[in-house]
Amino acid sequence: MAMEKLDILGIGNAILDVQSRAEDADLDRLGMPKGGMSLIGTEDAERLYAAMGPGVESSGGSAANTCAAAAALGAKVGFLGKVADDELGRVFRHDITSAGVVFPTAPLAGGAPTARCLILVTPDGQRTMNTYLGACVSFGPKDLDADAIRAAQVTYLEGYLFDPPEAQAAFREAARIAHDAGRKVALSLSDAFCVGRHRDAFLDFVREETDILFANEHEILSLYQTEEFSEAAVAVRRDVGFAALTRSERGSVIFAGSGSFAVRAVPTRVVDTTGAGDAYAAGVLAGFARGLVPAECGRWGAIAAAEAISHFGARPQADLKALVAMKPRQLAEALG
Amino acid sequence: MAMEKLDILGIGNAILDVQSRAEDADLDRLGMPKGGMSLIGTEDAERLYAAMGPGVESSGGSAANTCAAAAALGAKVGFLGKVADDELGRVFRHDITSAGVVFPTAPLAGGAPTARCLILVTPDGQRTMNTYLGACVSFGPKDLDADAIRAAQVTYLEGYLFDPPEAQAAFREAARIAHDAGRKVALSLSDAFCVGRHRDAFLDFVREETDILFANEHEILSLYQTEEFSEAAVAVRRDVGFAALTRSERGSVIFAGSGSFAVRAVPTRVVDTTGAGDAYAAGVLAGFARGLVPAECGRWGAIAAAEAISHFGARPQADLKALVAMKPRQLAEALG
Repeated sequence: MAMEKLDILGIGNAILDVQSRAEDADLDRLGMPKGGMSLIGTEDAERLYAAMGPGVESSGGSAANTCAAAAALGAKVGFLGKVADDELGRVFRHDITSAGVVFPTAPLAGGAPTARCLILVTPDGQRTMNTYLGACVSFGPKDLDADAIRAAQVTYLEGYLFDPPEAQAAFREAARIAHDAGRKVALSLSDAFCVGRHRDAFLDFVREETDILFANEHEILSLYQTEEFSEAAVAVRRDVGFAALTRSERGSVIFAGSGSFAVRAVPTRVVDTTGAGDAYAAGVLAGFARGLVPAECGRWGAIAAAEAISHFGARPQADLKALVAMKPRQLAEALG
Repeated sequence: MAMEKLDILGIGNAILDVQSRAEDADLDRLGMPKGGMSLIGTEDAERLYAAMGPGVESSGGSAANTCAAAAALGAKVGFLGKVADDELGRVFRHDITSAGVVFPTAPLAGGAPTARCLILVTPDGQRTMNTYLGACVSFGPKDLDADAIRAAQVTYLEGYLFDPPEAQAAFREAARIAHDAGRKVALSLSDAFCVGRHRDAFLDFVREETDILFANEHEILSLYQTEEFSEAAVAVRRDVGFAALTRSERGSVIFAGSGSFAVRAVPTRVVDTTGAGDAYAAGVLAGFARGLVPAECGRWGAIAAAEAISHFGARPQADLKALVAMKPRQLAEALG
C-alpha cells in the first residue's frame, strides 16, 4: 500500500490474550515453567482453557503491544500480522486501529482461527503464557508490505516470529527490504525459551541484520550462553550498535555506540507483568524515532513499562504522553 | 435439572462486556447520558464499536456479576440466562462456571448472537453502558429451571430483565415458583432509566413479589417519583421487608424489619465503577444466606463493591473471602 512516512513498523504475531489469575500450585499442576511462553496446539488450548479461572480478553501479541504503546506516545506506527476472518480477528483489528496504528494485513480466510494466548497471572504479578498460533502460522513473505517497510524509520520484529517457519522467512526478507532502503531494523529476543529453540538463527540475525536490540537478562544470557551479565554485555556491544537490556526492578542499561546509560526502573504496584517488555521497547523506540538521547529513550521505556505492570493486561490504559511529561513526584502518584 | 441446595439463584441477561476508556467529551459527541444504560440495535452497536477506543472484553451482566462475586464469597450459586452458541457465548459459559456458578441454561442455536455491552469508562471511574441484547431477548418462561428455583434460598432478579418482554414474563413466573416453595425473591432495580421505562410494572413487582430489594439513590427516587431520599425510604420500608439502598461514597443503608442500619463505604481507588452495585448485592446476599446480621451483610457488600471499583472490569479480581476476613487496616492496604 502507498504509505506516508512511519516512525515504526512492527511485524509480529497477531494474538488475543485471555488472562486469568492463578496460584503457583496451578502452574505446578499444569506443568508450566513460570514466566515462560509455550506453544500449544488446538487440543491443549481447549484443555487448558477449561482448567483456567474466569478470564479477561484483550488484544496482545508482543510487537503489536509495542506498536499500540508507541502510538500512545505519539509515534506514527504501522503493524503487519495475521488474524483470521473471525470474531476475535475483528476484535484485534478494532483494538489496534483504534489505538492509532495502521494495520494493512488482510485477514486469513478459511484457515485456522485467530491466535490466542492463554495467560496465567500469579499473585507476584508474573505471567506464564501458552500460545495457540492459529492464523499466525500462515504469515509469510507474501504478507510483507514493502512500501510500509520502506516508509518506516525502524522496522521492529519480535523474536517470537522465529517460531512459525513462514514468518521466519518473512522476517529476513523484511530486514533486507529495510536495509536496502537505508532504514533500521530492531529486534526483540522475546523469550529465553524461544532463544533456546532457535539460538543459531538468532545469533546470525543479531550479528547480520540488527541495528537495535531489546532483551531481558534471561534472554541475553541465553543468546550468548553465559551466566555473567557483564560477559553478555561485552558480546552485545560488539554485535549491535544500539542495545537496550532490561533487568526487571533493577532497571535497564542502554549501550549506544561507545556510550552506556543506566536507566532506573520507575516504581509502581506490580499487578501483572504481561507486556512490560513490549511497553519498554515502545518507549525506547518512540523516543529514538523522535531523536531523543539514549538516556531519555530509556526513561520513556521505563515509564511505559511501569504503566503496563500497574494493571491487568498488556496494552496501555493510561495517557502515556501525559506520563512521560510528568515530574517524578506526579509520576509516582499517577502510578502508585 | 436435579439440583442440590443453592444459596442464591440469579436470573439475568447473559452479556459480554467490552470496556474502553473515554473522555466526557466523547459521551457528549455520541449523545450518551453519563452513567446510564441504553439499549442499542445491531447497527448502532457496530457504529459505536467502530467509534470506541481499544477494548477489554470480560463476562458481565448484572445478576451474573452478582452470582460470580457471591460464589467468590463462598455462597452456593446458580445462574439462568441466555447466550448464543457462538465464541462469546462460550467465553461467558467458561467464565461463570469457572467462577464456581452452576449454569444450566442451554445456548440459543441459530438466532441472534450473544449479547454485548459496550461500556465507556470516563476518568472519574463512571461507566456509561450501551447494551445490544442479542440472544437475551429469547430468554423466556421455557428457560426457567423450576427445580433450581425451588432449590435456592433466594432467587435474585435483575431489573434489566424488564426490558426483554419474554424475560419479564419469565421473571414473574420465577417469583411465583419461588414463593410457592417458601423461598425468597430478591430484586435489583438496576438502572434509573430502566425504572423510568417500566415504573408501574416495577412498583407492582416490588409490592407484590419482592422480599429483598436493592437500589441506588437514583433508582429508588425514580421508583417513587420523589426528590427526597427520606420520602423514598419511608415508602420502601412500607413496601418490602428487607431493602438495601446504596448512596455511592456515602455508603448504604439497610432497612430490615423495623431496624435500620447505616453502612459505611470502604475507601478505595476509583478506577471503574462497572459492577459496583452488582458486587454490593453479592456481599449482602452471601451474608444473608449465611445468616449474618444486616449490618454485617452490609459490610460484606461494601467490601465487595470497593474491590469492584478498584479495577477495570465488573467481576472480582481479588480473593473476596480473604478481604471480608481482614481487619480494617489490612483491608485499606489491600484495596488502596
